[in-house]
Amino acid sequence: MCVLGLGLIGGSLMRAATAAGREAFGYNRSADGVRAAQADGFDASISVVETLERAATSQALIVLAVPMPALPSMLDHVRTTAPDCPLTDVTSVKVAVLQSVREHGLLDRFVGGHPMTGTAHSGWTAGDVGLFTGAPWVLSVDDHVDPQVWAEVMHLALDCGSVVVPAKSDQHDAAAAAISHLPHLLAEALAVTAADVPLAFSLAAGSFRDGTRVAATAPDLVRAMCEANSGPLGSSLDAAIELLSRARAQLAEHGSVAQLVESGHAAKTRYDAFDRPQILGISVGEDGWREELAAAGRAGGVIRSALPVLGSRG
Amino acid sequence: MCVLGLGLIGGSLMRAATAAGREAFGYNRSADGVRAAQADGFDASISVVETLERAATSQALIVLAVPMPALPSMLDHVRTTAPDCPLTDVTSVKVAVLQSVREHGLLDRFVGGHPMTGTAHSGWTAGDVGLFTGAPWVLSVDDHVDPQVWAEVMHLALDCGSVVVPAKSDQHDAAAAAISHLPHLLAEALAVTAADVPLAFSLAAGSFRDGTRVAATAPDLVRAMCEANSGPLGSSLDAAIELLSRARAQLAEHGSVAQLVESGHAAKTRYDAFDRPQILGISVGEDGWREELAAAGRAGGVIRSALPVLGSRG
Repeated sequence: MCVLGLGLIGGSLMRAATAAGREAFGYNRSADGVRAAQADGFDASISVVETLERAATSQALIVLAVPMPALPSMLDHVRTTAPDCPLTDVTSVKVAVLQSVREHGLLDRFVGGHPMTGTAHSGWTAGDVGLFTGAPWVLSVDDHVDPQVWAEVMHLALDCGSVVVPAKSDQHDAAAAAISHLPHLLAEALAVTAADVPLAFSLAAGSFRDGTRVAATAPDLVRAMCEANSGPLGSSLDAAIELLSRARAQLAEHGSVAQLVESGHAAKTRYDAFDRPQILGISVGEDGWREELAAAGRAGGVIRSALPVLGSRG
Repeated sequence: MCVLGLGLIGGSLMRAATAAGREAFGYNRSADGVRAAQADGFDASISVVETLERAATSQALIVLAVPMPALPSMLDHVRTTAPDCPLTDVTSVKVAVLQSVREHGLLDRFVGGHPMTGTAHSGWTAGDVGLFTGAPWVLSVDDHVDPQVWAEVMHLALDCGSVVVPAKSDQHDAAAAAISHLPHLLAEALAVTAADVPLAFSLAAGSFRDGTRVAATAPDLVRAMCEANSGPLGSSLDAAIELLSRARAQLAEHGSVAQLVESGHAAKTRYDAFDRPQILGISVGEDGWREELAAAGRAGGVIRSALPVLGSRG
């Protein structure tokens, strides 16, 4: 396996895959990161070309683990040096990546991925062999996806301790806007609102700390994920603004916030009771497998142990 | 000390005051709560009249620890049976309580209070002797406030392990709207928004869990505190809606959320670095003491050990 980018996610992936008995080598742009990885006993290089030549020779699975802005130049390298390798990514938006991969003519061997995990820290040293344990790892089941490549990435995610959530790229992005990008903007708005009120920071307790926790994330990271997903995020923002504006009007007119509070509590109760049934009985590669997996994912299903692959031995 | 209402806050107060060596007795409306308190060795009664007669005889400090809707009937009882006792409360809004106390002719001996603590649970059994440890406990320094009564409540709060934040009632309410009531409504709006997006609950992780945690609070409690503070909450809601709408427009027009994200991160950084200097050098009862304490509270100051009281011995 070949990991391009040895930051928090790429570095953790290298550790987790190695711990699972896989052979892994990687590239990192900064010499510091490469040295740190090597010092920890990992096979890291500062040359993207040499790394990709190795990948091409061994037909290794290539994992794009660079930030969104660095993706196009990485894809240039892949196209030039290792265009036939199976390819996946770990980026937090999926439609924009898919588009970039398509523009680079690399769609045939590509399966988009997104492990839903992370910390507020970054770089090789922030990595953690257990980062993926129990986390949902989204794998795209878009129309173009090749069953053999899909199965290969599924095995990687399961080896790292994740559960696999199959999803269409656009549905992933809509969900990510609602459960990750919108919460970041709400946290920022809460922090700014309170900062303008004398005494507020003095009295802040649990609900403020919870509500602003993710506002500590580096602004560049928040911008990168929000701005690369502007369409779905816009829709989520519209929905939230509409709910808050309606509550504001009802508070002014009737002195009540009943509607928002009751529907919010009901939604939270549904979320807390949300079940994740195991996806079983679908073979990767059978007729309609992509649609079936997408439907099972929408229903809350996750893959906890490898699904069979049609036409595979063993 | 006489505690009216032995739920989460009143029950914890009874435990904490007793542990600090104070004599405490209390009233609770439900027989179950009274029995549970008695079984734990506390002096609890189901008769509000008898409890207040004891308070009047011993000139005990009366703590109103009933929910907002039960307050007027409690104040009727206090006026009838124990009108000269020092009086405080632990309610999460201060202007509405002040108004109700004034209407009952009980202002002279009243100092509003609000310990900024709690859990998602309620009732005597949810109580905890350590609930107040380290928590900010707001004490109102409104113009009418009597220094002797104020000092008595200050000692109670310090005995329970809290730090005292002096504040005007209206400034408390504005701050509470921003750091407590607004976060509840944002959490409700986030839960409702995500509930409408297929796949969202499936992918929800840390930022969604943090952002919706307080949406688990019982709707009646959320409504009670929000609706009793509708003026300041309306202003906070307006500010948050305005910030989100501006971010929405900039995302649509320029593909950027830079302004909100950067100002949010800056505000969060200021909050995390927020210092709580100890308030020293002010004597309760000296000329202008209320204004001085209010200014010190706005500046982030807290009282960690008892301030001297003018005209007191010892």
